[in-house]
Amino acid sequence: MSDLDTARRDLVIANRILAHQGVVDAYGHVSIRHPLNPERFLLSRSRSPELVEERDVMEFTLDGKVVGDDRRPPYLERFIHGGIYEARPDVNAVVHSHAEETLPFGITKVPLKPVIHVASSIGPSVPVWDIAEKFGDDTNLLVVNTDQGRDLARRLGQGRVALMRGHGFAAAGATIQDVVRLSVYLPVNARVLTAAMRLGEYKPLSPGEIEGRGAFNPKAPESWRAWEYWARRAGVSQLLGEMP
Amino acid sequence: MSDLDTARRDLVIANRILAHQGVVDAYGHVSIRHPLNPERFLLSRSRSPELVEERDVMEFTLDGKVVGDDRRPPYLERFIHGGIYEARPDVNAVVHSHAEETLPFGITKVPLKPVIHVASSIGPSVPVWDIAEKFGDDTNLLVVNTDQGRDLARRLGQGRVALMRGHGFAAAGATIQDVVRLSVYLPVNARVLTAAMRLGEYKPLSPGEIEGRGAFNPKAPESWRAWEYWARRAGVSQLLGEMP
Amino acid sequence: MSDLDTARRDLVIANRILAHQGVVDAYGHVSIRHPLNPERFLLSRSRSPELVEERDVMEFTLDGKVVGDDRRPPYLERFIHGGIYEARPDVNAVVHSHAEETLPFGITKVPLKPVIHVASSIGPSVPVWDIAEKFGDDTNLLVVNTDQGRDLARRLGQGRVALMRGHGFAAAGATIQDVVRLSVYLPVNARVLTAAMRLGEYKPLSPGEIEGRGAFNPKAPESWRAWEYWARRAGVSQLLGEMP
Amino acid sequence: MSDLDTARRDLVIANRILAHQGVVDAYGHVSIRHPLNPERFLLSRSRSPELVEERDVMEFTLDGKVVGDDRRPPYLERFIHGGIYEARPDVNAVVHSHAEETLPFGITKVPLKPVIHVASSIGPSVPVWDIAEKFGDDTNLLVVNTDQGRDLARRLGQGRVALMRGHGFAAAGATIQDVVRLSVYLPVNARVLTAAMRLGEYKPLSPGEIEGRGAFNPKAPESWRAWEYWARRAGVSQLLGEMP
Repeated sequence: MSDLDTARRDLVIANRILAHQGVVDAYGHVSIRHPLNPERFLLSRSRSPELVEERDVMEFTLDGKVVGDDRRPPYLERFIHGGIYEARPDVNAVVHSHAEETLPFGITKVPLKPVIHVASSIGPSVPVWDIAEKFGDDTNLLVVNTDQGRDLARRLGQGRVALMRGHGFAAAGATIQDVVRLSVYLPVNARVLTAAMRLGEYKPLSPGEIEGRGAFNPKAPESWRAWEYWARRAGVSQLLGEMP
Repeated sequence: MSDLDTARRDLVIANRILAHQGVVDAYGHVSIRHPLNPERFLLSRSRSPELVEERDVMEFTLDGKVVGDDRRPPYLERFIHGGIYEARPDVNAVVHSHAEETLPFGITKVPLKPVIHVASSIGPSVPVWDIAEKFGDDTNLLVVNTDQGRDLARRLGQGRVALMRGHGFAAAGATIQDVVRLSVYLPVNARVLTAAMRLGEYKPLSPGEIEGRGAFNPKAPESWRAWEYWARRAGVSQLLGEMP
Repeated sequence: MSDLDTARRDLVIANRILAHQGVVDAYGHVSIRHPLNPERFLLSRSRSPELVEERDVMEFTLDGKVVGDDRRPPYLERFIHGGIYEARPDVNAVVHSHAEETLPFGITKVPLKPVIHVASSIGPSVPVWDIAEKFGDDTNLLVVNTDQGRDLARRLGQGRVALMRGHGFAAAGATIQDVVRLSVYLPVNARVLTAAMRLGEYKPLSPGEIEGRGAFNPKAPESWRAWEYWARRAGVSQLLGEMP
Repeated sequence: MSDLDTARRDLVIANRILAHQGVVDAYGHVSIRHPLNPERFLLSRSRSPELVEERDVMEFTLDGKVVGDDRRPPYLERFIHGGIYEARPDVNAVVHSHAEETLPFGITKVPLKPVIHVASSIGPSVPVWDIAEKFGDDTNLLVVNTDQGRDLARRLGQGRVALMRGHGFAAAGATIQDVVRLSVYLPVNARVLTAAMRLGEYKPLSPGEIEGRGAFNPKAPESWRAWEYWARRAGVSQLLGEMP
């Protein structure tokens, strides 16, 4: 299987996993950088992630233009993906989600900190991007052009995830497995933190625990285990290859 | 397919979507204004929305009388629909739901405000209708006559949705796709707002973000995407036509 | 179909509905008074409600003795049912559940009041029975003899439902449809009340709204609608007869 | 069926039950002590519990070494199991879970106490083990060697379950049925306690109610009932033998 075929296949798996895990619903999307051309990325046509198949995958330049004469309607918010790929050569996959557990942290001043080990990769605290800061209050909060995508990418900085006020989050990963994993456990971390704050003072992960996790290896057995499990539950086990 | 056939088909799809998304359960209903006669509306016989089929659809005048010699038992609360259609020529579809996330806002003084972009259409704050204000405390809270339906419609005013104290909500839309979408995201907004209030001070959508959303176009790709996804999940993909 | 056959069939339907709606899990049970002999009641052998079939139904006297030479293990807590049938000739069906949303109201001093119209039948406030008051603290909280069952029935009084501290609730109805309905909506009411209390001061149903509901008629279309819907979802539509 | 075959079969059932009940997800595991050699235990290869089959079961010594020439990747955290089996000859089965309802009690100072009768076996209060106390803050919180496993076992002491700060819990039982039951009801107890604390002062189980429960008998009808029910729901009814 070519690198491009693998990328398209993994993109379909990622769409289905995120839908089945409730990270995305009718809306939200996931992309992967083109494995042969870092100036492009792959993203489904405007379709709910649970329904995405390989033939739905389109190709875009980093400023969100469709490559080729593909006339199918793209996602309005493809600029989230382009903006992050442009700013971050280390990033090869991006998720945009409205996961509701994360939303309260985008509309209050309470920082979303990691409190469980599976969320250590989110960093010490997740930054919040408010579209109104730069683009005023006459938007519908959607990221619909390159300027907005770049501004969001600036708030993300060198981090892994940024909250979008009143809207959702954007997450980035070196691999698609990595960003899917982060996107699955970010809402769990938000729920646990929310519940802990109601009980009283809580202990977040320490700086060493956040730093020390080391690079995520998608081929490690414990990474594959989750990818395999989530893919099977999402009904796409036939797309899974052999354990690496 | 005639306009009437399309209306009946979309009404079945809407019933199934609302049931599958948990907006309605054994109770709750959705109607559509008759496409050829604005003085009438279509609504299922007394049946739980998940079970509704085309043959269950009945026709009513705006004061809730059955059209024709259809002897099947209608919903007791059909007056919710008639009252709103009578007062609002711009409304072509109505949902009544007991969605539990919205109920706390009907029995407290806390206003239900939009905090997420997908709920901007609910307006700056959702009004609460208390049946006891006009009809005293010897009701069972159900809207069972024209007077009650009209009183509820007055509280709704020119808005999109009104809460009903101790009971649920009534929502209105220019299209059935629009009111289904609002009914799906209203409970999500209520959950997010509830969680945010527990964290502390929160930032609702701004007036510009509420106003600026523009008219909902049910034929836009991003609207069709959700309708298609919800219909497929609800098991009625065979009723879906082509993407408009 | 004889009255006894109908009772046994409805008892199976009720078991499946309560399991599917999450009112009971591995534990919890539902009984029906013997339609021909008010001194007896029907209850499954010791089996989780989701698995109960007609052949699992056993017959008991009001003091919890097995009728006939049926050697199958009965539920340890059949005395809940006998105690209530003995004290309340108007009651023909009883549910015992551990539904977790109701449990906080059994271990705190916060009264469980009706706040939604579908829960008006629980009365102005649900009494709490604490087994330790009469039987000390060396029980495992289970109701395992006639004395305990009678004591619980006394706390229930002329009401419809009593909470059992650290354990669950016992509910009673004139018909099995009525007690199933109450058991489905009691946890919903508890969730809504819990959420409302966190928002601030709340408005419960008024005395008139609680009193005024009138007798529950299991043959009314709106009652049948819920019974049919719940039974279909629970996978026992084949047991349903015609709409009454 | 030999004792070893029974152990392996029950281990598969336990994996599936814990996955289906949401106690474990992609991560978490359950083990059983080798029935013929108390210095060994059985545990799946590195695989998500929902997918575990009999052929996935591996054998380990108490210090976490693989028995035989089995080259399949084991769980990184097998030392949780070995540490507990070494310290506690009365324990024959161990569960490790990330169940999120329990996590707030591991990162705050609020004690997790039993408030419902089905959780009486957790003891008066669940101890919290913080890996950083002994191993500093440069871990990723995982229990990846014998020292860490033994330290966790010390915090467990003679109890049934210990929380692991920012990570999950480890539970122990005399039988696999017993530890599965505890693992299913511990999160329920955590949810009920969390909700009760928000309402106000609550009443936990009394010392007598905690002590008095007596030994858990996996062959009693009320124990078998739950095991059968959970196994059927998890889709492994074909592995169930006859009721004991």
